[in-house]
Amino acid sequence: MKFKVAVLGATGMVGQKFVQLLADHPWFKITTLMASERRVGKKYGDEVNWIVSSDVPECAKDIEMAPMDPKHCDADIVFSALPSDVAREVEPKFAKEGFVVASNASAYRMEEDVPLVIPEVNPDHLGLIEVQKRKRGWDGFIVTNPNCTTIMLVLTLKPLMDLGLKRVTVATMQALSGAGYPGVPSLAIMDNVIPFIKGEEEKVETEPLKLLGEFDGGRVIPASIKVSASCHRVPVIDGHLEAVWAEFDGTVEVDEVVKAFESLEPLKDLPTSPEKVIIVRKEVDRPQPRLDRDAGNGMSVVVGRIKKVEDDIVRYLVLGHNTVRGAAGASVLNAELMVKEGYVK
Amino acid sequence: MKFKVAVLGATGMVGQKFVQLLADHPWFKITTLMASERRVGKKYGDEVNWIVSSDVPECAKDIEMAPMDPKHCDADIVFSALPSDVAREVEPKFAKEGFVVASNASAYRMEEDVPLVIPEVNPDHLGLIEVQKRKRGWDGFIVTNPNCTTIMLVLTLKPLMDLGLKRVTVATMQALSGAGYPGVPSLAIMDNVIPFIKGEEEKVETEPLKLLGEFDGGRVIPASIKVSASCHRVPVIDGHLEAVWAEFDGTVEVDEVVKAFESLEPLKDLPTSPEKVIIVRKEVDRPQPRLDRDAGNGMSVVVGRIKKVEDDIVRYLVLGHNTVRGAAGASVLNAELMVKEGYVK
Amino acid sequence: MKFKVAVLGATGMVGQKFVQLLADHPWFKITTLMASERRVGKKYGDEVNWIVSSDVPECAKDIEMAPMDPKHCDADIVFSALPSDVAREVEPKFAKEGFVVASNASAYRMEEDVPLVIPEVNPDHLGLIEVQKRKRGWDGFIVTNPNCTTIMLVLTLKPLMDLGLKRVTVATMQALSGAGYPGVPSLAIMDNVIPFIKGEEEKVETEPLKLLGEFDGGRVIPASIKVSASCHRVPVIDGHLEAVWAEFDGTVEVDEVVKAFESLEPLKDLPTSPEKVIIVRKEVDRPQPRLDRDAGNGMSVVVGRIKKVEDDIVRYLVLGHNTVRGAAGASVLNAELMVKEGYVK
Amino acid sequence: MKFKVAVLGATGMVGQKFVQLLADHPWFKITTLMASERRVGKKYGDEVNWIVSSDVPECAKDIEMAPMDPKHCDADIVFSALPSDVAREVEPKFAKEGFVVASNASAYRMEEDVPLVIPEVNPDHLGLIEVQKRKRGWDGFIVTNPNCTTIMLVLTLKPLMDLGLKRVTVATMQALSGAGYPGVPSLAIMDNVIPFIKGEEEKVETEPLKLLGEFDGGRVIPASIKVSASCHRVPVIDGHLEAVWAEFDGTVEVDEVVKAFESLEPLKDLPTSPEKVIIVRKEVDRPQPRLDRDAGNGMSVVVGRIKKVEDDIVRYLVLGHNTVRGAAGASVLNAELMVKEGYVK
Repeated sequence: MKFKVAVLGATGMVGQKFVQLLADHPWFKITTLMASERRVGKKYGDEVNWIVSSDVPECAKDIEMAPMDPKHCDADIVFSALPSDVAREVEPKFAKEGFVVASNASAYRMEEDVPLVIPEVNPDHLGLIEVQKRKRGWDGFIVTNPNCTTIMLVLTLKPLMDLGLKRVTVATMQALSGAGYPGVPSLAIMDNVIPFIKGEEEKVETEPLKLLGEFDGGRVIPASIKVSASCHRVPVIDGHLEAVWAEFDGTVEVDEVVKAFESLEPLKDLPTSPEKVIIVRKEVDRPQPRLDRDAGNGMSVVVGRIKKVEDDIVRYLVLGHNTVRGAAGASVLNAELMVKEGYVK
Repeated sequence: MKFKVAVLGATGMVGQKFVQLLADHPWFKITTLMASERRVGKKYGDEVNWIVSSDVPECAKDIEMAPMDPKHCDADIVFSALPSDVAREVEPKFAKEGFVVASNASAYRMEEDVPLVIPEVNPDHLGLIEVQKRKRGWDGFIVTNPNCTTIMLVLTLKPLMDLGLKRVTVATMQALSGAGYPGVPSLAIMDNVIPFIKGEEEKVETEPLKLLGEFDGGRVIPASIKVSASCHRVPVIDGHLEAVWAEFDGTVEVDEVVKAFESLEPLKDLPTSPEKVIIVRKEVDRPQPRLDRDAGNGMSVVVGRIKKVEDDIVRYLVLGHNTVRGAAGASVLNAELMVKEGYVK
Repeated sequence: MKFKVAVLGATGMVGQKFVQLLADHPWFKITTLMASERRVGKKYGDEVNWIVSSDVPECAKDIEMAPMDPKHCDADIVFSALPSDVAREVEPKFAKEGFVVASNASAYRMEEDVPLVIPEVNPDHLGLIEVQKRKRGWDGFIVTNPNCTTIMLVLTLKPLMDLGLKRVTVATMQALSGAGYPGVPSLAIMDNVIPFIKGEEEKVETEPLKLLGEFDGGRVIPASIKVSASCHRVPVIDGHLEAVWAEFDGTVEVDEVVKAFESLEPLKDLPTSPEKVIIVRKEVDRPQPRLDRDAGNGMSVVVGRIKKVEDDIVRYLVLGHNTVRGAAGASVLNAELMVKEGYVK
Repeated sequence: MKFKVAVLGATGMVGQKFVQLLADHPWFKITTLMASERRVGKKYGDEVNWIVSSDVPECAKDIEMAPMDPKHCDADIVFSALPSDVAREVEPKFAKEGFVVASNASAYRMEEDVPLVIPEVNPDHLGLIEVQKRKRGWDGFIVTNPNCTTIMLVLTLKPLMDLGLKRVTVATMQALSGAGYPGVPSLAIMDNVIPFIKGEEEKVETEPLKLLGEFDGGRVIPASIKVSASCHRVPVIDGHLEAVWAEFDGTVEVDEVVKAFESLEPLKDLPTSPEKVIIVRKEVDRPQPRLDRDAGNGMSVVVGRIKKVEDDIVRYLVLGHNTVRGAAGASVLNAELMVKEGYVK
């Protein structure tokens, strides 16, 4: 018996990744695909400009697209791949009507009563669900995952917290798929780097504080670290690469950092959970987007070039698949965690 | 009456840029092109795999390539585009025989008695020439320019010194032409970033200290700043982009930084000197390699996205043309400065 | 005394090329830039997403954009960079009011009384202007240039007509800029080829017949050749490359073909006319888009790899700059020809 | 019980694909990896610059590389990924000593007594094995597969033979991996097309005649068709795309062509054989390299845009994975066929 799942914004880049990841999922079965008005009633396979693989999965091809309305949604879990402004209006309607909304949108991430969760980092923040339902009087609820760039970063910051992490400086080299489809014009990015991604640096500088914060039963007390980010788009299809300088409140050795990274435990028994959360590579020239983005089926992050810069500063690189671990896969893993924890009936 | 100039390593990527920049130079005339043994005696136009423009300049096409031997060199100035290990052996032979060697190679950059010069930054370091000639007993001498990534960075650090610069953190996104030709295999870099460039980070972390140091008549006392670099190769033909965090010993405002950048004076009356050394752009998404690398004929650097991160930390981006301002153009500008200052007879 | 010129659709890709080519034109001076309603009244420099070089030309920066209405147009010649469907409505309004319209749009190219002209190929077709004005009762008129791919092809077909050309088979590898801006999404074309360009093959298969046809004073009798095209988009910024098989009604030698190509005369005294119309390169691996697209300031086409396939079939490659010789430059050259021939008062 | 297999030239691009395809093969087990002298004795995993996926397969990592000498080869089948000049010397040594050599090299393809085979096209040509052994007095033998571009083309030409195929004109857009590693320099191909691949057109113009020829028990009588090819390298990692004009000796309809393509039968019971040999897509813009190269695990070819050009000419596109169906996969499929037909003991 599988849970029935729906996707909001199913035709976009992240929507396609949701469909791809859910097509053969052992716990979930796609029942509803929702899109904007002009697509309603048309078959998903005919409407979507499918670019994430050769063909639309068979199980999704013939689904008639539904409007973004709870009345037309036959599902236990609703995954949201909506743009933020649309998500802001649409997602609450579903939560109100009792749906579990697992959202990749940024609209509600920083709301006080909305869990912003990476399963390996802060699963206990799901406790906010009760706060949210009570406060808003909803039958369902919204759980969010962070921005793609934030996720890769925070997966590596989490194990560094115990070493006395204080300040983080990060420069990113981000993939094209992060901008959705059609997204970045080829004429803008060929033989080029675009050193600006709207809203990205703000997200990377604020979301980690909530993720690494402490849930006291009622609210999340933000972690007291500082993050500064410079975000850049590079001509790469998938895979965000980040150069990170981590500053600690005391001396730190590379060995300690490696050990911390390797000790981050995967979540047991969740189908989308990778065997290793953080893979530390020893080669001088890794991680690389094209070679490492598919590690752990896109759910592992790969770290390399760890180096001590000053007594209290360590530099390293981290890479992850931005539309899997950084988007659709993140939501799916959150949903799996919620199933396991009994939040989905 | 033009000065006669020669190029060592004329067929490589930087060698081609030298030939291109010198082809119509108002002060210089190419008389000798030197290459490895197997090319000697062959016409430059027939041997070079010319890739920097449509055609080899007319004035260079029919020059028969000479061996890398002072006896076969008829020139006042010898520009060196040699790889470091070859430069180490070959350049002194020319300096010993009385030639002015303007070198882009890294071999002698950090030697105590060898000037490492960016004309707008530390022209007075040319004073080391006398030290060098005296110490080594040479009739000629070697003057070097820094690594390409260092040059863009230091052009922006120089004006920040007066604001109390203390620490620099830099992440680079470097162009393919920096690796020479054939250089980076297409299969390695398509849809990818390579987060490692051999020897690069070490250069970027040490050369600025010498460049920003003080020449006391006998030697250069290194500047007391710290630089940490993470260097990455991206699929861009020309133009190195760098994300820089500058930390000061007190509070600094963005306005002060902009003003400092814009006050860096170009050198008057040198043909290769750009009208503006640092161009500060106000757009949110500049500088970009493809759009900005040719600013000032590739001799300006372009700065953007200046932002205060903490009271004493400012972040910005800087971009420059790596084979012009960062290599061949740097050597040519050094040579022009030496002519003006009377070091070339 | 320069002619006053206007550009319709000035903010698009081809519109930008018009502005760039006209900015320093010895005969023309930009007076009016017209764009869609939402841009009217705003300064060109503020509105355009300029991507063809570092900066909008000074002379255009402060021009306030005008609506696409003859009443707001102060010009002798109106260049049209409009999409075909808009051109169909807008261009006649200008022609009716007495303007000389030099159009790059496809809307009127195949109309019986509209000249479709490449100056070096069929300048006499301008004779249709009188037919057009008479028939339509207009004070002005429309003159068009062909599709970008057609232009490169026909420049090489023209000299082959005398050798008995009968059938043409052409496979194209076309640049991204041909699709305008934003045009092709980067996610669609990175590490890919898209083997379809809407409407392109039809244009390439029909326009040459009109261009190579004979003007009998009243109409153009199409040439009796057959053209079959397969058109493909490749990840190249500028420059269309075409592999051509030319079949003749008798034996043809490579020498004859080379001689025919090299004998195509440039038009004297037109500022945009290149020194050589067709450049024949002898290297085994030319023409290449990045190296050859700027030949003759983008107005020459470059031919290479001419080879006899069968007694009566010759194969060769041709390359040209699609937004210069293939679009804006083509219209400007047409306008120059019209000035010279006295069609512009 | 698996057959033991070896790879000659195991560290190159095609060598890596062999290792990848053989790593989990149900019939074959890698026992020997052979490379040039300087690598002998070193572990494969340490020496290879692995770029075809994240990691070297576990089963190959620790294999010590052997010299290219039959004495050091413990295998039933030897796959050859050698460059042609090396293959010419090395392969016969193995055949002489009784090995079955399945070669991707071009050295012996066109020799009269060497089978050049595509299993779905001309399996009966394996009959030449006996001729070869007899003539050369070898205990083993060499069987070859065609050039990558030829394979995709001939898979589509085979079913057209019965429709009266007479002449073929083909323009190719070929992937970078076809040039091996390091292969094409990134500076040569970024924002570019290189319209020349050494020796390629000759292979594409001659190999099909042997492949489509008739084996009369003693030799192969070449097919009497004509092929003309123009070959171009494009910035695509994997997947050769070809635009084909097929001319027949009578009228042909698109329906007949589609039916012919779809009727080409896969070989039963061979593990590497795809479910469908030729996949005909109906979309206007397919096949595309990035979307279609992995069809049938890289062993299907994908056809599209079939169009009648003249009564007796049909144009279409074909795409295939050049290092799978076009190289390593082709050799492996040949080996599987030889096993099934009893040629391997």
